[in-house]
Amino acid sequence: MNGFNFYEKFSKNFREHPYLTRTLIVCAVSGGGGGLVAYSEGNLLSGSKVDKLPEAGKPKKKVVVLGTGWAGISFLKNLKNPSYDVQVISPRNYFAFTPLLPSVTVGTVEARSVVEPVRNIVKKKENINFWEAECFKIDAENKKVYCRSVTNEKEEFVVDYDYLVVAMGARVNTFNTPGVEENCLYLKEVEDAKKIRRAVIDCFEKASLPNMSDEERKRILQFVVVGGGPTGVEFAAELHDFVSEDLVKLYPSVKDLVKISLLEATDHILNMFDKRITTFAEEKFHRDGIDLKTGSMVVKVTDKEISTKEIKTGNTSTIPYGLAVWSTGIATRPVVTDFMKQVGQANRRVLATDEWLRVEGTNSIYALGDCATINQRKVMEDISSIFKKADQDNSGTLTVKEAQAALKDICARYPQVELYLKTKNLKSFVDLLKQSKGDVKESSEFNIEEFKSALSQVDSQMKNLPATAQVAAQQGTYLADCFNRMDECEKKPEGPLRFRESGRHRFRPFRYKHLGQFAPLGGEQTAAQLPGDWISIGHSAQWLWYSVYASKQVSWRTRSLVVSDWMRRFIFGRDSSQI
Amino acid sequence: MNGFNFYEKFSKNFREHPYLTRTLIVCAVSGGGGGLVAYSEGNLLSGSKVDKLPEAGKPKKKVVVLGTGWAGISFLKNLKNPSYDVQVISPRNYFAFTPLLPSVTVGTVEARSVVEPVRNIVKKKENINFWEAECFKIDAENKKVYCRSVTNEKEEFVVDYDYLVVAMGARVNTFNTPGVEENCLYLKEVEDAKKIRRAVIDCFEKASLPNMSDEERKRILQFVVVGGGPTGVEFAAELHDFVSEDLVKLYPSVKDLVKISLLEATDHILNMFDKRITTFAEEKFHRDGIDLKTGSMVVKVTDKEISTKEIKTGNTSTIPYGLAVWSTGIATRPVVTDFMKQVGQANRRVLATDEWLRVEGTNSIYALGDCATINQRKVMEDISSIFKKADQDNSGTLTVKEAQAALKDICARYPQVELYLKTKNLKSFVDLLKQSKGDVKESSEFNIEEFKSALSQVDSQMKNLPATAQVAAQQGTYLADCFNRMDECEKKPEGPLRFRESGRHRFRPFRYKHLGQFAPLGGEQTAAQLPGDWISIGHSAQWLWYSVYASKQVSWRTRSLVVSDWMRRFIFGRDSSQI
Repeated sequence: MNGFNFYEKFSKNFREHPYLTRTLIVCAVSGGGGGLVAYSEGNLLSGSKVDKLPEAGKPKKKVVVLGTGWAGISFLKNLKNPSYDVQVISPRNYFAFTPLLPSVTVGTVEARSVVEPVRNIVKKKENINFWEAECFKIDAENKKVYCRSVTNEKEEFVVDYDYLVVAMGARVNTFNTPGVEENCLYLKEVEDAKKIRRAVIDCFEKASLPNMSDEERKRILQFVVVGGGPTGVEFAAELHDFVSEDLVKLYPSVKDLVKISLLEATDHILNMFDKRITTFAEEKFHRDGIDLKTGSMVVKVTDKEISTKEIKTGNTSTIPYGLAVWSTGIATRPVVTDFMKQVGQANRRVLATDEWLRVEGTNSIYALGDCATINQRKVMEDISSIFKKADQDNSGTLTVKEAQAALKDICARYPQVELYLKTKNLKSFVDLLKQSKGDVKESSEFNIEEFKSALSQVDSQMKNLPATAQVAAQQGTYLADCFNRMDECEKKPEGPLRFRESGRHRFRPFRYKHLGQFAPLGGEQTAAQLPGDWISIGHSAQWLWYSVYASKQVSWRTRSLVVSDWMRRFIFGRDSSQI
Repeated sequence: MNGFNFYEKFSKNFREHPYLTRTLIVCAVSGGGGGLVAYSEGNLLSGSKVDKLPEAGKPKKKVVVLGTGWAGISFLKNLKNPSYDVQVISPRNYFAFTPLLPSVTVGTVEARSVVEPVRNIVKKKENINFWEAECFKIDAENKKVYCRSVTNEKEEFVVDYDYLVVAMGARVNTFNTPGVEENCLYLKEVEDAKKIRRAVIDCFEKASLPNMSDEERKRILQFVVVGGGPTGVEFAAELHDFVSEDLVKLYPSVKDLVKISLLEATDHILNMFDKRITTFAEEKFHRDGIDLKTGSMVVKVTDKEISTKEIKTGNTSTIPYGLAVWSTGIATRPVVTDFMKQVGQANRRVLATDEWLRVEGTNSIYALGDCATINQRKVMEDISSIFKKADQDNSGTLTVKEAQAALKDICARYPQVELYLKTKNLKSFVDLLKQSKGDVKESSEFNIEEFKSALSQVDSQMKNLPATAQVAAQQGTYLADCFNRMDECEKKPEGPLRFRESGRHRFRPFRYKHLGQFAPLGGEQTAAQLPGDWISIGHSAQWLWYSVYASKQVSWRTRSLVVSDWMRRFIFGRDSSQI
């Protein structure tokens, strides 16, 4: 697990894109919001690092990266080709190690320990510039992005690009539940985690004040977590630890009034994990006194009450609460929704890319991480082309030998084929053909109908990748690798055969390699689901978690801080100062 | 310097106060702000620690402490007598080690490392309760304080007391300069330091954005510090270090535009220090490129400009700025001003106490730290009483022997006498009398006029104590010691003679013991002025500073955090993430 350079030696391929000549439009553009919008050539700063032109004299290709989360930073860290002029635009000047955010909410680790300035990360790369600003509009047609300073809303500017890398992440999905935005806290950003930390202490301080009924104190100390995914579960566990290990000592008069509830709409929490983990987690929460309400959907939130509906019975009930954390899933950001309309994806819920992470309907925009999903091409859509390409002697039928020859390219282009073979325990593509036709020899032949029927179930293996840090980071590394070898692979494509056209794809498509997932459950116990269906639950998994998370840190600074935070917590407990 | 229990073995005296029977008024009171105000008996929480009655069966005396700064916490830490029922009320649930705030502004140490929860500090003392609320009114007549929850303004309550300890500190003094409140940052609270830290990074990020004139960038990177006292000077030095050691590497394109200016109305910075220190500091700032504008008063601040007036010439000028920190002195909080009106101090600028820290015009309210000053009684006011008391044989004249017998009590009651003798290098009070009468023998006699003339210059030695953490902490310890031995000293008073009345004062008056002061100047150099006029400037003083500040920490947690922050800074530099 140590080698969390997830993807370094993996998928080295990338699809071609037509090189479009860069259009230079230098003019003042009036933008939204009534503010000043001016055109930026990217090298306006006197003494800026980006002034340099590449040796050949031709201007560098401009790459604009939107976002500095897992995807964006992993792209920047791995981009080693100095022949791009890179502009990074993000409303946050730091990268945050988001898997530790639940720990930050209660001070198990400090917010400062999980962040690293972007400028520090790219310090040694002279061709990368960072601007702390928010992109509020992507103009795909004119290849521009419109940005706004985060500290001064009137300060707007425009940046043009040759390649755009969209890695803006997602927003919290409230499912339009009334009152959520006004009354619930989220757990997506570092600021969110800090808010929760302050709010938890607030609740304890408020409930300790005089002149209050016990009922009111109970309400204030009712903590509700909405969403039984890994984030919600980990937060509930961390909160329980904070209360039972630290706060009970400092607030003895109200400690018996505290209650933590976890609401989940489906029947089980952590339902993306193995059944054993789910069961263990549910039992542990039961032992810890965390109230688990599954099959119960939130329909409304007011400032003091959460209304829920039991999905099976339709019965509604209300829970008076003091603090509610909403952690149910993600949705597309408005700027991305607007961009989707421009590129003909108005009807989709999530921005779609092809297997090379290029946004469908564009030729120089890439999207990765939580803000996009890969729209994996179906085998059935291309079945005739595949058959035709594999049929090297143009006989109209496919021999086993011909099928075997095309196998590598088919699996590379359509990873669901490989996955299907693995799932069905078939040793090769040929076994699959054999399965539908009975015993076959090298010279056996298949017509297109038999070929189709053999592959008919394959597309059912297609799944969207989860919206995790791991996926985003692997995508960033993959895309950086493609950018690093763009020219090289232009000359010598290394991707699979183009079944519908001639030649080969420039790069291999992106492939996700799942390295396992953790679910910390509090009390120094963690559940780990590792590749090969290896399940580990308990203290040993917690120590694995510590070592993996320490090794995954983006810098030695954050690594040493996180580790010392853990030690500090063991020695002194968590701090409850209201800052 | 290590023994920073400043005061443990010092002044053990305290004046008598009439024990008033506690008035119990249990009723609903309507309060300001339209919110609910109800009456609190202090033990409303079920299972609260304060329910216990002392063995004798009589109710415990109620002590209410307002504030958890240096004075309040030092009082609470040293209060060892369990026979009081103590309620602590403060808008912040933590104690902050304020001398490190300038370091917090730039991340040399983290905010979290300089705070410790009040509940943690008093955890072992069962008779102390803490409420996170703001006192907005003191009702001295009815012995009540009106409080408001800091998180919910509508939540108000009333607490009654037998003894009130006012340790609320002070607010920043803007001298009613227009625009200061709206545009300047302060440096009094932890929140202020965190705001400054974010604002400094903001300036660098803003100035790095495209589409900006160099003039505008220069304005944004013009940092102005108003006030050349220890806080302002230390902040300017810390900011200079942050910029030159860390930010220049991350913001190379704008590094040459940064300018730090320090404005001071008098002729020199650090004018409470020795001349050598002032000169060294001014020269060091000059070398560092910190622009020092002395003799220049701020008359107006707008959102982008500071207007100053040269005091000697009356010339005005304006400085465009990006960030201004105002650190010029302190003023009385509104709630204290209101209280002063109630106790007949409406005409004073600062709340006055007697030498036993009791608020003048009250008999059960004490005030300490920055919110009050000691109104030292003048010898000249009491000269007849002193003379009369010393004249044991009622002869109308004083022999040297009689004067010597009264000496200890006079010096204890009027510390200025002792100070005067020390300053004039007189070995004893008798030397002083000799001075005015020439050579004297044991049997020599003085009449009252000669006595007066000998002491006429003594009151000139009276000085207000500085508004420092050291004074506040010593006062807290002193007052706690008095409370600890209240009954004991009631029976056996240990204070000086009451010159105007009969008997002795219960306790010795408060005496401040100056243990020295530091002025960190940046670049690992500090100026230290220690008792006995010992001056140390440079790296050695910096190491002394490190060890003193580490030893002075309120808990082992903060001590280890502060030290590890210093180490982290040496290794990794200061973090510039915008959180």
